[in-house]
Amino acid sequence: MEESKGVVKHVLLAKFKEGTSENQIEELTKGYAKLVDLIEPMKSFHWGKDVSIENLHQGFTHIFESTFESMEGVAEYVAHPAHVDFANLFLSHVEKVIVFDYKPTTVRV
Amino acid sequence: MEESKGVVKHVLLAKFKEGTSENQIEELTKGYAKLVDLIEPMKSFHWGKDVSIENLHQGFTHIFESTFESMEGVAEYVAHPAHVDFANLFLSHVEKVIVFDYKPTTVRV
Repeated sequence: MEESKGVVKHVLLAKFKEGTSENQIEELTKGYAKLVDLIEPMKSFHWGKDVSIENLHQGFTHIFESTFESMEGVAEYVAHPAHVDFANLFLSHVEKVIVFDYKPTTVRV
Repeated sequence: MEESKGVVKHVLLAKFKEGTSENQIEELTKGYAKLVDLIEPMKSFHWGKDVSIENLHQGFTHIFESTFESMEGVAEYVAHPAHVDFANLFLSHVEKVIVFDYKPTTVRV
Protein backbone atom coordinates (compact mmCIF):
# COMPACT_ATOMS: atom_id res chain seq x y z
CA MET A 1 0.00 0.00 0.00
CA GLU A 2 1.95 2.98 -1.31
CA GLU A 3 0.02 5.49 0.80
CA SER A 4 1.19 3.91 4.03
CA LYS A 5 4.90 4.44 3.34
CA GLY A 6 7.07 7.42 4.30
CA VAL A 7 7.61 9.60 7.35
CA VAL A 8 4.46 10.99 8.94
CA LYS A 9 4.37 14.25 10.89
CA HIS A 10 1.78 14.31 13.68
CA VAL A 11 0.86 17.90 14.57
CA LEU A 12 -1.27 18.89 17.54
CA LEU A 13 -2.46 22.45 18.13
CA ALA A 14 -3.93 23.27 21.53
CA LYS A 15 -5.62 26.05 23.39
CA PHE A 16 -5.56 25.18 27.08
CA LYS A 17 -8.55 25.84 29.29
CA GLU A 18 -8.58 29.06 31.26
CA GLY A 19 -7.03 28.39 34.63
CA THR A 20 -4.51 25.84 33.36
CA SER A 21 -1.24 26.95 34.98
CA GLU A 22 2.14 27.23 33.27
CA ASN A 23 3.24 24.47 35.63
CA GLN A 24 0.48 22.14 34.46
CA ILE A 25 1.30 22.89 30.83
CA GLU A 26 4.97 22.10 31.53
CA GLU A 27 4.00 18.79 33.14
CA LEU A 28 1.77 17.93 30.17
CA THR A 29 4.59 18.80 27.76
CA LYS A 30 6.99 16.53 29.66
CA GLY A 31 4.37 13.78 29.66
CA TYR A 32 4.00 14.16 25.90
CA ALA A 33 7.77 14.02 25.42
CA LYS A 34 8.03 10.88 27.55
CA LEU A 35 5.86 9.00 25.04
CA VAL A 36 8.90 8.91 22.73
CA ASP A 37 10.54 6.48 25.17
CA LEU A 38 7.38 4.45 25.74
CA ILE A 39 6.02 4.01 22.22
CA GLU A 40 8.48 2.54 19.76
CA PRO A 41 7.13 3.99 16.46
CA MET A 42 7.17 7.56 17.86
CA LYS A 43 10.57 8.79 16.69
CA SER A 44 10.87 12.41 17.78
CA PHE A 45 9.06 15.25 19.48
CA HIS A 46 9.25 19.01 19.71
CA TRP A 47 6.90 21.75 20.77
CA GLY A 48 6.54 25.52 20.85
CA LYS A 49 4.38 28.48 21.77
CA ASP A 50 2.72 30.71 19.23
CA VAL A 51 4.82 33.77 18.38
CA SER A 52 2.96 34.71 15.21
CA ILE A 53 2.34 38.32 14.20
CA GLU A 54 -0.46 37.90 11.65
CA ASN A 55 -3.21 37.27 14.21
CA LEU A 56 -4.44 34.18 12.36
CA HIS A 57 -3.63 31.68 15.12
CA GLN A 58 -7.34 31.47 16.05
CA GLY A 59 -6.63 31.37 19.76
CA PHE A 60 -4.29 28.35 19.64
CA THR A 61 -1.29 28.89 21.90
CA HIS A 62 0.78 25.67 21.76
CA ILE A 63 1.94 23.25 19.09
CA PHE A 64 3.36 19.75 19.55
CA GLU A 65 4.93 17.87 16.66
CA SER A 66 6.02 14.26 16.63
CA THR A 67 7.33 12.08 13.83
CA PHE A 68 6.48 8.51 12.88
CA GLU A 69 7.95 6.16 10.30
CA SER A 70 4.57 5.27 8.82
CA MET A 71 0.81 5.54 9.23
CA GLU A 72 0.92 2.06 10.77
CA GLY A 73 3.22 3.59 13.38
CA VAL A 74 0.70 6.34 14.07
CA ALA A 75 -2.09 3.77 14.42
CA GLU A 76 0.05 1.79 16.88
CA TYR A 77 0.71 5.01 18.84
CA VAL A 78 -2.96 6.03 18.91
CA ALA A 79 -3.97 2.62 20.31
CA HIS A 80 -1.05 2.31 22.77
CA PRO A 81 -2.15 2.31 26.45
CA ALA A 82 0.48 4.94 27.34
CA HIS A 83 -0.95 7.25 24.67
CA VAL A 84 -4.56 6.55 25.64
CA ASP A 85 -3.83 7.43 29.28
CA PHE A 86 -1.88 10.54 28.34
CA ALA A 87 -4.47 11.69 25.76
CA ASN A 88 -7.28 11.46 28.33
CA LEU A 89 -5.29 13.62 30.75
CA PHE A 90 -4.15 16.07 28.07
CA LEU A 91 -7.57 16.50 26.48
CA SER A 92 -9.15 17.21 29.88
CA HIS A 93 -7.06 20.41 29.96
CA VAL A 94 -7.74 21.77 26.47
CA GLU A 95 -10.49 24.08 25.34
CA LYS A 96 -9.84 23.23 21.72
CA VAL A 97 -7.52 20.98 19.80
CA ILE A 98 -6.56 20.05 16.26
CA VAL A 99 -4.67 16.90 15.36
CA PHE A 100 -3.30 16.78 11.81
CA ASP A 101 -1.14 14.02 10.29
CA TYR A 102 0.71 14.40 7.00
CA LYS A 103 3.54 13.16 4.86
CA PRO A 104 5.80 16.12 4.13
CA THR A 105 6.22 16.81 0.42
CA THR A 106 8.61 19.33 -1.08
CA VAL A 107 7.88 21.06 -4.38
CA ARG A 108 10.34 21.64 -7.20
CA VAL A 109 9.52 24.91 -8.93
CA MET B 1 16.48 40.56 22.15
CA GLU B 2 16.78 36.88 23.09
CA GLU B 3 13.25 36.06 21.95
CA SER B 4 14.01 37.02 18.38
CA LYS B 5 16.80 34.45 17.94
CA GLY B 6 16.50 30.88 16.67
CA VAL B 7 14.75 29.08 13.82
CA VAL B 8 11.06 29.82 13.46
CA LYS B 9 8.58 27.34 11.97
CA HIS B 10 5.66 28.97 10.17
CA VAL B 11 2.70 26.57 9.95
CA LEU B 12 -0.44 27.21 7.93
CA LEU B 13 -3.48 24.94 8.11
CA ALA B 14 -6.15 25.40 5.46
CA LYS B 15 -9.56 24.19 4.50
CA PHE B 16 -10.22 25.25 0.92
CA LYS B 17 -13.60 26.54 -0.16
CA GLU B 18 -16.00 24.06 -1.68
CA GLY B 19 -15.51 24.12 -5.42
CA THR B 20 -11.75 24.73 -5.27
CA SER B 21 -10.36 22.18 -7.73
CA GLU B 22 -7.36 19.92 -7.17
CA ASN B 23 -5.72 21.86 -10.00
CA GLN B 24 -6.22 25.17 -8.26
CA ILE B 25 -4.85 23.75 -5.01
CA GLU B 26 -1.80 22.47 -6.91
CA GLU B 27 -1.23 25.91 -8.44
CA LEU B 28 -1.55 27.57 -5.03
CA THR B 29 0.91 25.06 -3.56
CA LYS B 30 3.41 25.83 -6.34
CA GLY B 31 2.89 29.55 -5.78
CA TYR B 32 3.59 29.06 -2.08
CA ALA B 33 6.75 27.06 -2.84
CA LYS B 34 7.98 29.76 -5.22
CA LEU B 35 8.12 32.26 -2.35
CA VAL B 36 11.27 30.46 -1.14
CA ASP B 37 13.10 31.81 -4.21
CA LEU B 38 11.56 35.28 -3.95
CA ILE B 39 11.87 36.05 -0.25
CA GLU B 40 15.37 35.69 1.16
CA PRO B 41 14.58 34.90 4.83
CA MET B 42 12.23 32.04 3.85
CA LYS B 43 14.56 29.05 4.02
CA SER B 44 12.46 25.98 3.24
CA PHE B 45 8.96 24.78 2.49
CA HIS B 46 6.98 21.57 2.57
CA TRP B 47 3.32 20.68 2.58
CA GLY B 48 0.95 17.75 2.99
CA LYS B 49 -2.63 16.56 3.09
CA ASP B 50 -4.32 15.36 6.24
CA VAL B 51 -4.11 11.58 6.66
CA SER B 52 -5.04 11.50 10.35
CA ILE B 53 -7.18 8.74 11.84
CA GLU B 54 -8.32 10.36 15.10
CA ASN B 55 -10.92 12.65 13.49
CA LEU B 56 -9.60 15.70 15.32
CA HIS B 57 -8.48 17.61 12.21
CA GLN B 58 -11.53 19.92 12.49
CA GLY B 59 -12.11 19.98 8.76
CA PHE B 60 -8.61 21.18 7.84
CA THR B 61 -7.29 19.32 4.81
CA HIS B 62 -3.89 20.86 3.97
CA ILE B 63 -0.82 21.97 5.89
CA PHE B 64 2.04 24.16 4.65
CA GLU B 65 5.20 24.58 6.69
CA SER B 66 8.04 26.99 6.04
CA THR B 67 11.14 27.81 8.05
CA PHE B 68 12.73 31.15 8.86
CA GLU B 69 15.97 32.06 10.60
CA SER B 70 14.30 34.49 12.99
CA MET B 71 11.11 36.36 13.82
CA GLU B 72 12.59 39.35 11.99
CA GLY B 73 12.74 37.07 8.95
CA VAL B 74 9.05 36.22 9.35
CA ALA B 75 8.19 39.93 9.66
CA GLU B 76 10.14 40.65 6.46
CA TYR B 77 8.28 37.79 4.73
CA VAL B 78 4.86 38.94 5.93
CA ALA B 79 5.49 42.47 4.59
CA HIS B 80 7.14 41.37 1.33
CA PRO B 81 5.12 42.33 -1.79
CA ALA B 82 5.44 38.79 -3.23
CA HIS B 83 3.93 37.40 -0.02
CA VAL B 84 1.20 40.05 0.14
CA ASP B 85 0.12 39.27 -3.44
CA PHE B 86 0.24 35.52 -2.85
CA ALA B 87 -1.57 35.73 0.49
CA ASN B 88 -4.44 37.71 -1.05
CA LEU B 89 -4.86 35.07 -3.76
CA PHE B 90 -4.46 32.14 -1.36
CA LEU B 91 -6.84 33.49 1.28
CA SER B 92 -9.53 34.09 -1.35
CA HIS B 93 -9.69 30.31 -1.79
CA VAL B 94 -9.85 29.20 1.84
CA GLU B 95 -12.89 28.68 3.99
CA LYS B 96 -10.78 28.68 7.12
CA VAL B 97 -7.12 29.08 7.97
CA ILE B 98 -4.76 28.99 10.94
CA VAL B 99 -1.28 30.50 10.89
CA PHE B 100 0.96 29.50 13.78
CA ASP B 101 4.63 30.48 14.27
CA TYR B 102 6.89 28.83 16.83
CA LYS B 103 10.45 28.12 17.82
CA PRO B 104 10.81 24.33 18.09
CA THR B 105 11.94 23.17 21.51
CA THR B 106 12.88 19.64 22.44
CA VAL B 107 12.42 18.28 25.95
CA ARG B 108 14.89 16.19 27.89
CA VAL B 109 13.02 13.73 30.11
